[in-house]
Amino acid sequence: MCGIVGYIGNEEAVPVLMNGLAKLEYRGYDSAGISVYNDGICTIKSKGRLSMLSDKIHGEGVVSSHIGIGHTRWATHGAPSDRNSHPHNSQSGKISVVHNGIIENYMDLKAFLEEKGYRFASETDTEVVAQLFDFYYDGDAVGTLRRVIGKIRGAYALAIMCNDHPDSLVAVRKDSPLLVGLGHDGNYIASDIPALLEYTRDYYLLNENEIVFLKKEGVTLYDLDGNQIHKDVFHVTWDIDAAEKGGYDYFMMKEIMEQPQALKKTVFPRLTERGISLEALSLTEEEIKNFNRIHIVACGSAWHAGIVGRYVMEEINRIPVEVDIASEFRYRNPILSKNDLCIIISQSGETADTLAALREAKKQGVKVLSIVNVVGSSIARESDDVLYTWAGPEIAVATTKGYTTQLSMLYLVALYFAKVRGSVDEMRFQEYLRELRLLPQKTEDILKLDGKMAELAKRYAHCEDVFIIGRGLDYAAAMEASLKLKEISYIHSEAYAAGELKHGTISLIEEGTLVIAIATQERLFEKLVSNVKEVKARGANVIAITTKGGKDMEAVADEVIYLPKVADIFTSSFNVLPMQLFAYYTAVERGCDVDKPRNLAKSVTVE
Amino acid sequence: MCGIVGYIGNEEAVPVLMNGLAKLEYRGYDSAGISVYNDGICTIKSKGRLSMLSDKIHGEGVVSSHIGIGHTRWATHGAPSDRNSHPHNSQSGKISVVHNGIIENYMDLKAFLEEKGYRFASETDTEVVAQLFDFYYDGDAVGTLRRVIGKIRGAYALAIMCNDHPDSLVAVRKDSPLLVGLGHDGNYIASDIPALLEYTRDYYLLNENEIVFLKKEGVTLYDLDGNQIHKDVFHVTWDIDAAEKGGYDYFMMKEIMEQPQALKKTVFPRLTERGISLEALSLTEEEIKNFNRIHIVACGSAWHAGIVGRYVMEEINRIPVEVDIASEFRYRNPILSKNDLCIIISQSGETADTLAALREAKKQGVKVLSIVNVVGSSIARESDDVLYTWAGPEIAVATTKGYTTQLSMLYLVALYFAKVRGSVDEMRFQEYLRELRLLPQKTEDILKLDGKMAELAKRYAHCEDVFIIGRGLDYAAAMEASLKLKEISYIHSEAYAAGELKHGTISLIEEGTLVIAIATQERLFEKLVSNVKEVKARGANVIAITTKGGKDMEAVADEVIYLPKVADIFTSSFNVLPMQLFAYYTAVERGCDVDKPRNLAKSVTVE
Repeated sequence: MCGIVGYIGNEEAVPVLMNGLAKLEYRGYDSAGISVYNDGICTIKSKGRLSMLSDKIHGEGVVSSHIGIGHTRWATHGAPSDRNSHPHNSQSGKISVVHNGIIENYMDLKAFLEEKGYRFASETDTEVVAQLFDFYYDGDAVGTLRRVIGKIRGAYALAIMCNDHPDSLVAVRKDSPLLVGLGHDGNYIASDIPALLEYTRDYYLLNENEIVFLKKEGVTLYDLDGNQIHKDVFHVTWDIDAAEKGGYDYFMMKEIMEQPQALKKTVFPRLTERGISLEALSLTEEEIKNFNRIHIVACGSAWHAGIVGRYVMEEINRIPVEVDIASEFRYRNPILSKNDLCIIISQSGETADTLAALREAKKQGVKVLSIVNVVGSSIARESDDVLYTWAGPEIAVATTKGYTTQLSMLYLVALYFAKVRGSVDEMRFQEYLRELRLLPQKTEDILKLDGKMAELAKRYAHCEDVFIIGRGLDYAAAMEASLKLKEISYIHSEAYAAGELKHGTISLIEEGTLVIAIATQERLFEKLVSNVKEVKARGANVIAITTKGGKDMEAVADEVIYLPKVADIFTSSFNVLPMQLFAYYTAVERGCDVDKPRNLAKSVTVE
Repeated sequence: MCGIVGYIGNEEAVPVLMNGLAKLEYRGYDSAGISVYNDGICTIKSKGRLSMLSDKIHGEGVVSSHIGIGHTRWATHGAPSDRNSHPHNSQSGKISVVHNGIIENYMDLKAFLEEKGYRFASETDTEVVAQLFDFYYDGDAVGTLRRVIGKIRGAYALAIMCNDHPDSLVAVRKDSPLLVGLGHDGNYIASDIPALLEYTRDYYLLNENEIVFLKKEGVTLYDLDGNQIHKDVFHVTWDIDAAEKGGYDYFMMKEIMEQPQALKKTVFPRLTERGISLEALSLTEEEIKNFNRIHIVACGSAWHAGIVGRYVMEEINRIPVEVDIASEFRYRNPILSKNDLCIIISQSGETADTLAALREAKKQGVKVLSIVNVVGSSIARESDDVLYTWAGPEIAVATTKGYTTQLSMLYLVALYFAKVRGSVDEMRFQEYLRELRLLPQKTEDILKLDGKMAELAKRYAHCEDVFIIGRGLDYAAAMEASLKLKEISYIHSEAYAAGELKHGTISLIEEGTLVIAIATQERLFEKLVSNVKEVKARGANVIAITTKGGKDMEAVADEVIYLPKVADIFTSSFNVLPMQLFAYYTAVERGCDVDKPRNLAKSVTVE
């Protein structure tokens, strides 16, 4: 996720900005840039690491300045490149902008501005903000920003510098983080506290659409109507390490809690009034209508997402779908035909086995659509089509928001195909869209189980063997839940198709064995109740995860966690959430290093 | 597997025969019958339990006799019924025969005899023996039997009674068990020792094609050329319980050791000179050529066999194959089309989930071919086509010969389809047939690893967590191996696709964790060596199972088990064998009840 830093004060701006950006590196980035003022705006940016930007700045001679904005970019729209890096300036060169988030209606705005004669230099959504600001600019930065906010839609943290007012900065945030640092020698803005912690421990935390006007001497806050607002100063007592995690003990928990935002960013820009818009797919309607089979190929959690994808696609597209572990797919001489589609899923876009599988599919002449989080990654580059999950960088080794945004992307693809193929009737389609829109909010609600799952984790953290059972989509969730528990708590958990347990594995169930039963699909609920009875009869302790109304479960399970009801196809987005929390707290209870489990690498770039 | 008892002496024959048959019940049966002599041969037989036969005998009035033969039948050719039960008599009524085994060339012999005017009353292969004996009979029972043996091909234990010599019985065995009991008041034959243990502890053990001539006063043995032979008396010191297990401590080990025979019985009758003959398939060549997809559906170990089947069929038939757990298949709204084939696998033929899946497939109009061990079982009856694995009854809950005969049946089906579809060239096809013929012998050779696996089990029996890794067909074997270990030793073992371990589960590997690596496919060998290195680096103890020549493994693994080389498609028949032995000895070391693991039923007839 992008990082923003801004400064105005007595110090030299360049080192403050570069230092701040360095502290935001944990957020992940693929390019960086700064704008400072010295007799005009001077912008320097570079693809790659901060050291490359630094070399460029020193190569051109460090500009002395007391005001500036800086940015680390995590590519969303437009591949990582010098040109697409921030800051973006208006064509006039008068306005410089850094942005974190996604402007959903940038295409419309671009068209509007182009009609007014504006020419665009980059492929980014951000550039429209610089041009629009320029278009409306009347010397009043705060007023202009209010007008701009009235026009843009989406998520944004913006910091803006104007050529003709080199003694002030304006900034605003909505759905993307930004805070204000209050110093003795000047004032600051940044995406996150660690960027500023060596300068100040006093902050304003901004609510949605609060506008900040920074001068060296002080900071003024306004609401959207232009009324000045006052707020308390927030004093940070955390250390640097905790600060990078936004106050959480581990990145994993931060990322769990970021899921509602990540889902919003992934889903909302792709929802139109009554349909779904996927960016420039090369797949024609003809091709989509004629799919013979779909092959989903991935590793680890992405493979679990693929298993969910299979259920959903077979259900609403009625196309046979096959899901393969990438390392297996490569070596088993898969049967592919030219009307097949291969869907590749990878958070990092660099997973070696998955990349090799992609190449195998391409070699056999099959079209490849990839679902990837890191823009410009190898898998993204080599695919025929790529759809990005805009989850932002994932630091914890155990994926959470990476996984749930992959699921949401699969829903979007399945629904998009359903529309083209006419495999779902309009009423049902609209019903699905409505539910999809509620995904982020419901996710936020479910994450309130936080305390409850911590309590259960405390109770069961001593268990060395755990079985997680479910049927259909709940079985897919069980697999993902089990992997989470394994990865970070080193508990030997195993997922089982609930109906399969009695064909052997039930012999492992004894007095006190923990069994987690997932039963969130209405039509399979009764079956799961029976399976819970089977393991209870052998002495298991059972935590059941089900939907509201499934009262029968309380009579058989020791603990019941209730989730909101949802159409079956979306159930996997919810049932995994309490298990993420449970795995997290179990690992904490057991004293494990949650973010960096032993033996594991974040992205596996070797076979 | 059928059971045979015969008696001649001073006692009443009926109670001796019925008592003996009762002791053979453990072998499994679906019908029973006896022939005794009292002024002519009197034959009584009945479908169902022995008590039903007993009721019939008492209903008709117990015949007093001092000679007789008895039989419990485990159906192979012809469904269980009164008519198909043994003994089978010649049309003349002069000859009565009981038989255990399969007469492979019975169709030819039947045609020959029909031409001579013989009419047949049953669907069995056995009836031809009675008629053929009658055809050649010249008053010399031993000489006649030698002629009959010269004509029949296959596996047999035979006991024969002749109307005109009510003072003697003849018997012979080849590839099916039969032994001779030597008593004070008469002499006995039986399939197994427990049938006779309350009458005598002195036995002759018969070699292949040794002919027995029994009279009240004594027993004479002949070889195939009619020369009399002499042998030592074998004195039994076992108790009854051990005797039923053929001297083994558990049925499981007995069944492991029966695999070469079971494979012979399943495979050999279906091999012709240069091809494969599957009994009366209703599938036409046209249908086989036009298969769109194949769905294999099963539970537990049969599901693992299905996973092997998928690899093999995709490889040599180039038809997309999907494998489903039965309880998942039923509830996931599977996409089936009329050119699809559904293959159902079940040892018992009564597995509830699998039966329900079969019905679902039939309801959707898809042809069903089942692979089943128990003749006349529900799945066999309801399928369009059924192919029996002639493994004989499996008593131990953990399947061994049931599984390996399922594999061999899948090879036969795949090769049969390959021939029809022309998907394998003739040279390769013949090569596969040659290897298939060697399966029983190689199985026997591999089972000599017995001692080695016992030694390894002793060393590692304390482990509570075991990971079994492999790729492709070795991954399928890993799943089956893992289930064996779980079922009977209650160790939490888990199978992993070797390439997938590093995507999470490797975090569970620590100092001393046991990892079993299966690497029997040449082209994947190097990859597995790398995976072994990965786990060794984390401190694992590694037992590797590989084929001769893979020397690199010795440099990295702690123990290397070598198997004979074989074409990749057959590898799953071998790599599972050392793991059956390992699981068995581990369970014994841990003091578990191998045959009756806690919580498990032999055939799961509930959902």
